[in-house]
Amino acid sequence: MSKTRSIENVDPIPSSQRAARVEYAIRDVVIPATALEAEGHDIIKLNIGDPLAYPGLPTPTHMIDAYVRALRDQHNGYSPSYGIPDLRAAIALDECGKPRGGWTCQPEDVYVCHGVTEALQVLFAATLEQGDEVLAPGPHYPPYLAYPQMFGAHTVEYRLDPNDGWRLDLEDISAKMNDRTRLLVLIDPNNPTGNVCEPHEIDAVLEIARKWPNCIVVADEIYDRMDFTGHKVSIASRSTDVPVITLNGVAKVYYAPGWRIGYMALHDPSNRLDSVRDGIERLLRSRLCASTPAQHGYLAGLTGDKEWMNEYNAKVLARRDLCIQRINAIEGIEVEAPGGAFYMFARLTHPRWMDRDKDFVLDLLHAEHVLLVHGSGFSKEYGIGHVRIVYLGDLEILDEAFVRIERFLTS
Amino acid sequence: MSKTRSIENVDPIPSSQRAARVEYAIRDVVIPATALEAEGHDIIKLNIGDPLAYPGLPTPTHMIDAYVRALRDQHNGYSPSYGIPDLRAAIALDECGKPRGGWTCQPEDVYVCHGVTEALQVLFAATLEQGDEVLAPGPHYPPYLAYPQMFGAHTVEYRLDPNDGWRLDLEDISAKMNDRTRLLVLIDPNNPTGNVCEPHEIDAVLEIARKWPNCIVVADEIYDRMDFTGHKVSIASRSTDVPVITLNGVAKVYYAPGWRIGYMALHDPSNRLDSVRDGIERLLRSRLCASTPAQHGYLAGLTGDKEWMNEYNAKVLARRDLCIQRINAIEGIEVEAPGGAFYMFARLTHPRWMDRDKDFVLDLLHAEHVLLVHGSGFSKEYGIGHVRIVYLGDLEILDEAFVRIERFLTS
Repeated sequence: MSKTRSIENVDPIPSSQRAARVEYAIRDVVIPATALEAEGHDIIKLNIGDPLAYPGLPTPTHMIDAYVRALRDQHNGYSPSYGIPDLRAAIALDECGKPRGGWTCQPEDVYVCHGVTEALQVLFAATLEQGDEVLAPGPHYPPYLAYPQMFGAHTVEYRLDPNDGWRLDLEDISAKMNDRTRLLVLIDPNNPTGNVCEPHEIDAVLEIARKWPNCIVVADEIYDRMDFTGHKVSIASRSTDVPVITLNGVAKVYYAPGWRIGYMALHDPSNRLDSVRDGIERLLRSRLCASTPAQHGYLAGLTGDKEWMNEYNAKVLARRDLCIQRINAIEGIEVEAPGGAFYMFARLTHPRWMDRDKDFVLDLLHAEHVLLVHGSGFSKEYGIGHVRIVYLGDLEILDEAFVRIERFLTS
Repeated sequence: MSKTRSIENVDPIPSSQRAARVEYAIRDVVIPATALEAEGHDIIKLNIGDPLAYPGLPTPTHMIDAYVRALRDQHNGYSPSYGIPDLRAAIALDECGKPRGGWTCQPEDVYVCHGVTEALQVLFAATLEQGDEVLAPGPHYPPYLAYPQMFGAHTVEYRLDPNDGWRLDLEDISAKMNDRTRLLVLIDPNNPTGNVCEPHEIDAVLEIARKWPNCIVVADEIYDRMDFTGHKVSIASRSTDVPVITLNGVAKVYYAPGWRIGYMALHDPSNRLDSVRDGIERLLRSRLCASTPAQHGYLAGLTGDKEWMNEYNAKVLARRDLCIQRINAIEGIEVEAPGGAFYMFARLTHPRWMDRDKDFVLDLLHAEHVLLVHGSGFSKEYGIGHVRIVYLGDLEILDEAFVRIERFLTS
């Protein structure tokens, strides 16, 4: 009788291969750090791109006020699947008016998501078939590698030049494009290197993409208003024919990552994205909506005065400069100055560590209680021998971190 | 030269097949309704399961207060990927103490998501391979059909008995189980029928699942505290060996769907989910976290007094009873009284409409400005000839809706 059959001793239930393959270095190194904290140790965490985790960079009050008003006014139900109309309109206006030139973005081109993460999931699900390729920078933000394989596609990395400020290697991009390349990703300013593309480089990338009519350019611009070079331009604004899907949101330059609101905006100057748009819309309707009250908070950020950003950027820049100065004074580690975002991707030149970045991160964590992320977590091919440093800590914390890093490297 | 090549006239870029196949009836009928509203018409919307869209059922103040405090206290950064520890602990305690018996749920068994929708996406992504099957009730909530196909699997519907209160057809479940059935889904109370399983039925389902050692039972209990029968029990609490993954959240019984916070909780009494748990955790880490401040709002709901739920349930029950009374008095439509949730799945007995539920919904919308959802949107096989009615409107609105439905059916 089946009733007497026991399942106590049968085999474990397997997970899917796609899930088993997912790695996310940034959060994976948190596991040993959390264990150390549980033992009572204080860890200096320069690992996670969250301004709220560091002093002096709070979410602006006018955005919180708007979010609170939405909650008190009972905007707690579902919102339209593509986003509340006022937010879509404000985002469109913001894209139209980007510094150094926007593009003709209509509210209907904008889709509000649970952060850029969900926008990426939806974009990949809407475009990729078995065997398709995504061309993404190496090193890159890990979901660009983790998610395409969930849909039977895979990510090919193009080279960023470690000897020239992590500039795009245009020849490498050109050589790696093919008929299966569905998405060509630019992360600008880049995570994890902080490189900011120059306008002529973007034009060159569009020129390459133009030759492959099934290819959409993905413009991840979540750090766009953290540009210390003065040459950051909207990628979509440079295209008169190639389709460009822009990603952005409230997390980074509006200092509210925990609100989980981002968007994608479709620039379709040659009218070729109708099917993709329909696929995106079907996927978005099926998952209901992004947080309704949080959308009101982001709306206040977009429509309010942005003077405060200058003050925040000045703080971030001072922190960057301290890091560069300290790193340049330490034997065994060196760095190219990042032009934007709040990351630097430093090279381990110490002979003991130059090929062992993950060991370096774990040993540094245990010996000195400083947490970085290993470069190979951002690219097996292009990240080895590097570490990503988030430079959002205040000056004292950063100074102490480098005291410890120096002690570790010279011990 | 490539520079002169134009892409203006090349083919459109296709979307993926998986995206093109996604349908979500509940939101799809919103499109024509929105068009009517744009023309200035008022629509009585009995289509969407959002209590906030109807008068008299606001999100409770103590939950909003906690959410606001979290925002003001700058809990605006990323949170741990599996949820803030206090919320995981509160959910675990809630699962342990469910009315009529809980189960031994530890905080580590709980994973907080962007609503049950994300929990489902992660669960399917973590378990399903090409060719696998999900056995789900027919009719059912549409994502149970839409999402498995995104991962190469497909959904097989088991029959709910339309002549016996939409009770589970246990023989049909048993007949449709096989080696590829990875997930057996119970939605209890059910959406769209309102059926509430009796404990002996759950035991019978577990008895069936026990014979298929690769199968996990999915217990969607998002409406669990909206039970008018008095016999709703926790599904996980009935299992001593079969793995059960419980889904729940803040949306329905805590009246905050727009906050987008849900969870899955793993009951693994025979220790067979280690791989699946690892896959779930990898996927969750890669997507960062659910809304941080919203988690504090849900926490207040779980830990606060729940007396207010009785008052809310009494209101919902009065609305249900009015609908049943009105439907029973109209020729051409009939309904089984739902035992829980806030849906009823009414049968069109009018000869003109009994096989044309979508036409009925669209014609009713245009003629009388009442919006329902067609039953075939919840199951091509088991939903035809029915409509789903959300009975959350206040009594006057519901009364007016049925005046119009009656006029339409007798015209």
